[in-house]
Amino acid sequence: MIGLAVGEDRTHSSFVLGPPLLRHDGALYGGTAIAASIIAMEAATERDVQWITTQFVKPTQNGETVELVTDVLAMGRRSAQVRVTAFVDEAVQFTSIGTTGIRTNGLTGQFEQMPEVAGPEDAVDIWQGHTRPVETPDDPSFRRMVEYRDVSSGGPLCLWSRFTDGRAMTPAAVAFVADMVPLAVARCAGKMGAGSSLDNSMRFGVVPEVEWVLLELQGHLASGGYGHGSAKVWADDGTLIAVGGQTASMIYIFDQDEPPPLR
Amino acid sequence: MIGLAVGEDRTHSSFVLGPPLLRHDGALYGGTAIAASIIAMEAATERDVQWITTQFVKPTQNGETVELVTDVLAMGRRSAQVRVTAFVDEAVQFTSIGTTGIRTNGLTGQFEQMPEVAGPEDAVDIWQGHTRPVETPDDPSFRRMVEYRDVSSGGPLCLWSRFTDGRAMTPAAVAFVADMVPLAVARCAGKMGAGSSLDNSMRFGVVPEVEWVLLELQGHLASGGYGHGSAKVWADDGTLIAVGGQTASMIYIFDQDEPPPLR
Repeated sequence: MIGLAVGEDRTHSSFVLGPPLLRHDGALYGGTAIAASIIAMEAATERDVQWITTQFVKPTQNGETVELVTDVLAMGRRSAQVRVTAFVDEAVQFTSIGTTGIRTNGLTGQFEQMPEVAGPEDAVDIWQGHTRPVETPDDPSFRRMVEYRDVSSGGPLCLWSRFTDGRAMTPAAVAFVADMVPLAVARCAGKMGAGSSLDNSMRFGVVPEVEWVLLELQGHLASGGYGHGSAKVWADDGTLIAVGGQTASMIYIFDQDEPPPLR
Repeated sequence: MIGLAVGEDRTHSSFVLGPPLLRHDGALYGGTAIAASIIAMEAATERDVQWITTQFVKPTQNGETVELVTDVLAMGRRSAQVRVTAFVDEAVQFTSIGTTGIRTNGLTGQFEQMPEVAGPEDAVDIWQGHTRPVETPDDPSFRRMVEYRDVSSGGPLCLWSRFTDGRAMTPAAVAFVADMVPLAVARCAGKMGAGSSLDNSMRFGVVPEVEWVLLELQGHLASGGYGHGSAKVWADDGTLIAVGGQTASMIYIFDQDEPPPLR
């Protein structure tokens, strides 16, 4: 997905940032950063990611080589505490902290239910019919690789998502598609646009080998241009796969009848 | 609250870990780590914390001197990207990443409502009448400093909380009292005990100068001994002040009629 090359010591890795790992404006897409960090953490510890927070520091540009350094801060019997720092030359681009761990026969359960929504089959891609041009296979952004279909009916923003090549979900893939919370914050405020993510935090159960996941996205509050929201990620059989939260700088938002602001 | 001494360069600070900044077992309480990190981030940037995630790496022991190093990874016009690393000697004890920022006249709003629950006045402290001994002013743990009163009525765990000295809430104070999500994960699973937090992630609006806050705590899922949940923090006038999430290792849980397991 990312093309991450992991070194022999398993704590150094790198990838070249290019299409389709970009945002619409040509800089690093947040989902790329968290997915690369998950792969790096799991490679260094040979354990499954349990939670991760990725902080977006710089808007890494198309064509740059990103080098990831993974520090295992503690290695317990079950849980490893891990930090990933991503550099271009000497400059930090993003950084992640999280836990990888070994699941045992310990506490297992699900305490919430999937919202009742239609399946993905009859729903329409969120970027079709929008004021933006219809996407093409030449689109340099992550939109070439993933699909979102809106089945919201009041309440939270509910989007079915998958990779257009039909690949099965993994924790890294879930994190890649779920970087959509700022969109929900804007919609809750009755606005278009989506703001610029400052971070992405995800917490995982076991991710089944499904093609589609349902993103249930809820804005919580916004204050002085900063917005906060959360995501729940569901498999189509009603299994809760992951939960997460994001904060965004909500400055690139606009009313429905306005043109988008220039950046 | 923490007794954090901030150096002249504003990027180095320290505190001595002692009562009442401890867990019941005498090690660092998670709320202490996130509160100290917030104070350090705000001191280094002179901006207000917008979000933070604190990763608990080692169980720092009573009496140790904790040194915090604050790295400002990026300083934008509104947002600063900040990292805090806490050491005892050379060993990392906890680490935090987050954004501090300047709130402008940008997007402001609240998209959810406070649950309808009774006020704190008639509710009972959660540790009174419990199988544990009643707390005293000599308790070395954080319980000496804070109070929790359960007003749940089905659904999420709802706890009113305040500092027993009546001090006004701040972002650091909110983070200190809100480190309670693992308790909700255990309760959702019908268990007693609370597990051991691996991290605490909080996202803030403006924190008003109130004495009491309502913690609305929800467990989402548990998988192989790891549990995930979230917190919403409300002022008594219905303002949503903060939201957060935590992952915990859920190994110290037990049934209601069982004695707690030995650690």
